[in-house]
Amino acid sequence: MQSNHNYTYQELAAFAEAVFLKMGCPASDATLATNVLLSADLRGIDSHGIARLVGYVRLWEVGRINATPNIQIVHETPSTAVIDGDRGLGLIVAPRAMEIAMEKAKQVGTGWVSVKNSNHFGIAGYHAMMALEQEMIGMAMTNASALVAPTYSAEKLLGTNPIAVAIPAGEEAPFVADFATTTAANGKLEIAQRNNTDIPMGWAQDAEGNATQDASILKKGGALLPLGSEKEQGSHKGYALGSIVDIFSAVLSGASFGPWAPPFPAYVPMPENMPGEGLGHFIGAMRIDAFRPAADFKSNMDLWLHRFRNATPAKGHEQVYVAGDIERKMEKERMQNGIPIVHAVQSDLAALAEKMSLTFEVKS
Amino acid sequence: MQSNHNYTYQELAAFAEAVFLKMGCPASDATLATNVLLSADLRGIDSHGIARLVGYVRLWEVGRINATPNIQIVHETPSTAVIDGDRGLGLIVAPRAMEIAMEKAKQVGTGWVSVKNSNHFGIAGYHAMMALEQEMIGMAMTNASALVAPTYSAEKLLGTNPIAVAIPAGEEAPFVADFATTTAANGKLEIAQRNNTDIPMGWAQDAEGNATQDASILKKGGALLPLGSEKEQGSHKGYALGSIVDIFSAVLSGASFGPWAPPFPAYVPMPENMPGEGLGHFIGAMRIDAFRPAADFKSNMDLWLHRFRNATPAKGHEQVYVAGDIERKMEKERMQNGIPIVHAVQSDLAALAEKMSLTFEVKS
Repeated sequence: MQSNHNYTYQELAAFAEAVFLKMGCPASDATLATNVLLSADLRGIDSHGIARLVGYVRLWEVGRINATPNIQIVHETPSTAVIDGDRGLGLIVAPRAMEIAMEKAKQVGTGWVSVKNSNHFGIAGYHAMMALEQEMIGMAMTNASALVAPTYSAEKLLGTNPIAVAIPAGEEAPFVADFATTTAANGKLEIAQRNNTDIPMGWAQDAEGNATQDASILKKGGALLPLGSEKEQGSHKGYALGSIVDIFSAVLSGASFGPWAPPFPAYVPMPENMPGEGLGHFIGAMRIDAFRPAADFKSNMDLWLHRFRNATPAKGHEQVYVAGDIERKMEKERMQNGIPIVHAVQSDLAALAEKMSLTFEVKS
Repeated sequence: MQSNHNYTYQELAAFAEAVFLKMGCPASDATLATNVLLSADLRGIDSHGIARLVGYVRLWEVGRINATPNIQIVHETPSTAVIDGDRGLGLIVAPRAMEIAMEKAKQVGTGWVSVKNSNHFGIAGYHAMMALEQEMIGMAMTNASALVAPTYSAEKLLGTNPIAVAIPAGEEAPFVADFATTTAANGKLEIAQRNNTDIPMGWAQDAEGNATQDASILKKGGALLPLGSEKEQGSHKGYALGSIVDIFSAVLSGASFGPWAPPFPAYVPMPENMPGEGLGHFIGAMRIDAFRPAADFKSNMDLWLHRFRNATPAKGHEQVYVAGDIERKMEKERMQNGIPIVHAVQSDLAALAEKMSLTFEVKS
């Protein structure tokens, strides 16, 4: 077990912002990238937050991330656009895509932006939630390097390809779904590795496609399984969802897709014969008053949320949650009491600080 | 075990069309409803095909289905519309919604139609596939009466709420996903009941929320489980997906939602205090050339499909399929060799024929 210690949001944000500035990001981009990155830590999705900062820097060092991208619309209609992220941080490119989607939604009701030549964009939920303030439904998805085997496949052909959908309400807290299209995220396997425990059946398979409980199986040629785990439990549905995310994000935009999606670790060579440019995202915004008067929608949405949040719990449970409830609670708690960072990540950040002539205090 | 016998597509279509005409549907609607209904039988989704014809007639008899609806747009923007189905057959209303979505996509790149006051629309895949001929991506989803318990809930609050996404290609056969957002469809429980066998763990829970293998559990207050089965296997993701379908289909349109969605069996009373009108659907169309030149998209999509279809199979399997492959094969086979209909359904159809002064030959 690793010890860990809490950092305030402000401590982590100041450090992350300093790193992005050292990379050469313009000041406003450094602030935005920090907000996006740390929203993961606040919401309890530790695998996608500051723990990845070192990884982003390494991609910048090898030239796969451009700190001063010229993000451009390369194709558009009144409700759609494709943008070229110019190898920018996904943390910057995806919010820009959402701004464009919302601008189009203001004009014609909805906006849909497919993005190529980007990089990892942090948590999908951040980008989807941008729409909430504008009384819009927001959607965000991204492809990622292949860790997942389709149903009946021994090969890894898809990333964990998350989907986020944020839906505004009136008095009730909004609906915010944000999930990988796999049974379990890779971060959960990493935790099991650190703790030296087995993983549950249904999370992964070995190199030949056999069921396994080995938490280190990905290092031995194994794969994560799509949501549903096995055919009998509906894995072909999780496989279809992951496919849709890959196609909307990368085939629609001209990014690299399927087994050719670029890897996150900078030491992993780029795939050969890449059919497109960089990672892809798909971002959508729908104005709720493009369908109904906003007050009517919000009133019904409040009823929906209230009914689900007050459902009779199953035996052994105390509460039925709506998507986003647990993350919202965590965000409040961590903003107040700080964010725990495991020692291994603290060491990584301290080494990064030294390399960049910055300071990062190791607390445990 | 029930014996069964094959009918030609033409035999079944002639009978279904005659029934819709007897209900008072205009001739073109009777033909369309027949095409939609039987597309389920052809594609092997027997639970949603001619087996449901008797159910549609019963809903018409009690006045819940209007055979001559005045389907109208009640709200719109350049890329969106809400339509009121006027209690029409969903089999008619949903294709009309897709026509409107595609017309909007022609104008502004994409079209999104949320539908209220409708009824069951057959298989979601039919409506999504309408877009393929127009070089568009098609999407269709619908809410349905509550059979599914959210994660940690003892109560049933969601329908099986399917999602279909059809994506065109060049030389390769298209991608056509069409799946309920549950682990298993209710039809699979019905088959296990007929065969007197247990169902696998992860498909259903009892009235208190305990795991069960009892195929009859829904009659005893039990519930189907969302895709993922349990929290540890990601059921909160399936629950989120089912929620999104319910909200897009019914809260956006003003249909009845969640536990208040109208039931399919005509003998089940309508829920009290319904917050909206009838069932809801959500239909979308995106022109592929609203994102990239169609030829570029198709060429990359062919590469995607070819790579997945030719992936190395897992041990014990011979082939990796893409969404829609199995249904396409079935459709070809059944168009050639006929459609098997179980005896119980044959008897139902014969009784229906007698009531409507038509003929239906029982073959086994």
